[in-house]
Amino acid sequence: METRPYVSWQQMNDFMIDVFKAYGVPEEDAKICADVLLESDRRGIESHGCNRFKPIYIDRIVNGTLLPVTKIDIVKETPTTVVMDANNGMGMVASHKMMEMLIEKAKTYGMAGGAIYNSTHYGIAGYWTTMAEKAGMIGISGTNARPSVAPTFGVEPMMGTNPLTFTMPTDEEFPFNFDCATSTVQNGKIEFYERSGKPTPAGLVITKDGGTMTDSGTILKEMRKGNCALLPLGGLGEETGGYKGYGFTTIVEILSAALTGGPYMKELSGKNPDGSNRMYRLGHFFFVINPEFFMGLDTFKSTAGGILRGLRNSEKAPGAERIYTAGEKEHLAWLERKDKGVPVGESIQKELVELRDKLKLPYIFPFEQK
Amino acid sequence: METRPYVSWQQMNDFMIDVFKAYGVPEEDAKICADVLLESDRRGIESHGCNRFKPIYIDRIVNGTLLPVTKIDIVKETPTTVVMDANNGMGMVASHKMMEMLIEKAKTYGMAGGAIYNSTHYGIAGYWTTMAEKAGMIGISGTNARPSVAPTFGVEPMMGTNPLTFTMPTDEEFPFNFDCATSTVQNGKIEFYERSGKPTPAGLVITKDGGTMTDSGTILKEMRKGNCALLPLGGLGEETGGYKGYGFTTIVEILSAALTGGPYMKELSGKNPDGSNRMYRLGHFFFVINPEFFMGLDTFKSTAGGILRGLRNSEKAPGAERIYTAGEKEHLAWLERKDKGVPVGESIQKELVELRDKLKLPYIFPFEQK
Repeated sequence: METRPYVSWQQMNDFMIDVFKAYGVPEEDAKICADVLLESDRRGIESHGCNRFKPIYIDRIVNGTLLPVTKIDIVKETPTTVVMDANNGMGMVASHKMMEMLIEKAKTYGMAGGAIYNSTHYGIAGYWTTMAEKAGMIGISGTNARPSVAPTFGVEPMMGTNPLTFTMPTDEEFPFNFDCATSTVQNGKIEFYERSGKPTPAGLVITKDGGTMTDSGTILKEMRKGNCALLPLGGLGEETGGYKGYGFTTIVEILSAALTGGPYMKELSGKNPDGSNRMYRLGHFFFVINPEFFMGLDTFKSTAGGILRGLRNSEKAPGAERIYTAGEKEHLAWLERKDKGVPVGESIQKELVELRDKLKLPYIFPFEQK
Repeated sequence: METRPYVSWQQMNDFMIDVFKAYGVPEEDAKICADVLLESDRRGIESHGCNRFKPIYIDRIVNGTLLPVTKIDIVKETPTTVVMDANNGMGMVASHKMMEMLIEKAKTYGMAGGAIYNSTHYGIAGYWTTMAEKAGMIGISGTNARPSVAPTFGVEPMMGTNPLTFTMPTDEEFPFNFDCATSTVQNGKIEFYERSGKPTPAGLVITKDGGTMTDSGTILKEMRKGNCALLPLGGLGEETGGYKGYGFTTIVEILSAALTGGPYMKELSGKNPDGSNRMYRLGHFFFVINPEFFMGLDTFKSTAGGILRGLRNSEKAPGAERIYTAGEKEHLAWLERKDKGVPVGESIQKELVELRDKLKLPYIFPFEQK
């Protein structure tokens, strides 16, 4: 049962747009950014939603590591490809423009690909791949991020949690949407374990001495000091396939930087050697594939839907209630939340009130009404 | 230390071509098939090399589930895409033609994609992606296969071990090459554990009662009866990310079938309901991305190489000798084997002699010389 108070989608959306505008983000760009953050909450992905509004976006605009006005340079464009310099503006604004361009190209050419450099956090990767899916196409995207994942047989945080995201059309009410980190968990999950007073399962984190760590509070503390790293999907060593998760993370690290020649790994720490802040300079990549250039969208949708229904209807493990397919839990979260709004815990409530008071914006939130 | 006798690359290649020809494969096609199988051995991937020559190719030609003459129908072609019907011929021959076409398209258009249906086992996925890499491009490929992997919270073998393979150019002696099943292990690995008298690590296989199984011999026996299934990368349940491996396997299942409208999952068992053999009707997909349509091949290569060197040079876990990057072990296997040839164990020796004697071919293998 959800015990947190809700804020309506409309109010949260309007509020975010007004705050972004107050910090210098142009109105059209502010609308895009608010929609990307709220889409995460609509899908129940609370690590990338309004919880990040203040710390990852507003605070960074304030400290100068995120420019509110996004100057986009199209560095290269061909009939099927685009390379963009986001000039340390809003990664979500550059990504939105990129996907609009690629979808148009894929309508004409069937396939399109793009890469952005000098960018900032672009929200959930699944937002961009869903833009392709809504246009009847397959979307693929990934991004690098500050280093936190160790390679197999290593202990040093080298790569980001690097999502490798696919969204594909189906004949169902919701698409196939696979959108998650290529490490076993990302930081947000360990924060969740800590808040719930739970240990982190063994094999998710590696310490400098090659061991693992399960106390969630200690992990978060040591992670900040660089004394431990996340393990790739598949876990420690090679026996349970850890080198495969490591491979997927590396694919995303390469595609996010090599298509543009942008920075990678330790260069993405957001810190200068003296500890001062610097631009994040992230890179993202995007591919769009139009099924009409293969055997058609209807064929694609019904085949994909058939596979997903077959999986859900297969024999369940004893005690398992149901078998999900990727994107289904996000759809269920939306059905649960669509009439209620976004649930906000205490820390987010505080951030909203703080921003409202500081900017003297005329909002009264439901959680303030006794 | 390798204790098995070697057969030279030249002799094995010539022998395979002669045997394929004797079974009705045209000479040019036989050359392609022999090269694909031997490339697997050159990379040290012994599950997909000359060990499969007789059981997966020659025996299937004999039992009628693999046609030696590959009639390729180009069902659809656009400037950037190709859909092919392989008519149950040699999957390797159809895939070779597909990659030649896609590389040409990507030279002109920057991006290309293709899908094949009614196909048969196409060897290592990395062969096809390496064709793109040798042309200075990024290759991506995957294939479905007979059902053996259970979805998260399920126990029934539903999907293939479905590789999602990427090969990318670097400025090093060998490319980045990530080529493996999206399940934690495939059958071949459990056969390896059995031959070595080792248990299979817990969490790689799920039984009908939702438990795991570690006795390698029992696993192989029960797997054949459909009484257990492989688990996706990340293992049992959701806690260690099993739903992520499940997601990757599903992506490959969808792309392998939905671009063409071809069959999937249980339809790929190779058996009719009465237990008799039928055509496998596999599907494969291929994408080619040309870095010259982004910031250029040299930029791509040096950035990718920089990332891979950074990973190898990062801090190792205590006791770890080195950190590898994907494709490095395959390169090391080649350096070890290139002057010696392909090592053949007793079962392969028997198969080679049996084929040679049956066809009265004039070969004397080194392991026959006392």
